[in-house]
Amino acid sequence: MVGRIRALPGRRAALIAILAEGTGAMPGCLSYVVAEDLADPDAILVTEIWRTREAHAASLQLPAVRDAIVRGRPLIASFEPLAETRPVAGVR
Amino acid sequence: MVGRIRALPGRRAALIAILAEGTGAMPGCLSYVVAEDLADPDAILVTEIWRTREAHAASLQLPAVRDAIVRGRPLIASFEPLAETRPVAGVR
Repeated sequence: MVGRIRALPGRRAALIAILAEGTGAMPGCLSYVVAEDLADPDAILVTEIWRTREAHAASLQLPAVRDAIVRGRPLIASFEPLAETRPVAGVR
Repeated sequence: MVGRIRALPGRRAALIAILAEGTGAMPGCLSYVVAEDLADPDAILVTEIWRTREAHAASLQLPAVRDAIVRGRPLIASFEPLAETRPVAGVR
């Protein structure tokens, strides 16, 4: 899945740090990339690949992820889902 | 970078096959994922991570990539760039 998170003005770096911390050991997570949107100083692109929907849902219960959500949410201005996807080819 | 390619109606699978063939050995390519957009039967999400802009530009001259562009272009209805990004954290 691909989404664009807009941080509150000036808080992108702090939000990225929180997102980065929470992405360590997440069972079933095949890829989780946090990237700066070069066209928008407040925007973050998050692209995720999970083995199953269930693995993704379960990750939201992990203590580290729950903690990141609690700490990150106050820094978030908006979340724009760009696509839910099924990877079919390519290299990671 | 993240982009959404819309294939002509019914031609997504053929376009994905062409995109998949062209993504083998591309120097400087850290990640290249081709995915079906689950909300649009004609749409393909391509997410790419390159070591440098120059590496990406050079890839467009590779014979396999040039061939894929020539064969794929007739199947493309539109290309929507979603973001140009700088990956800063995460796992791949």
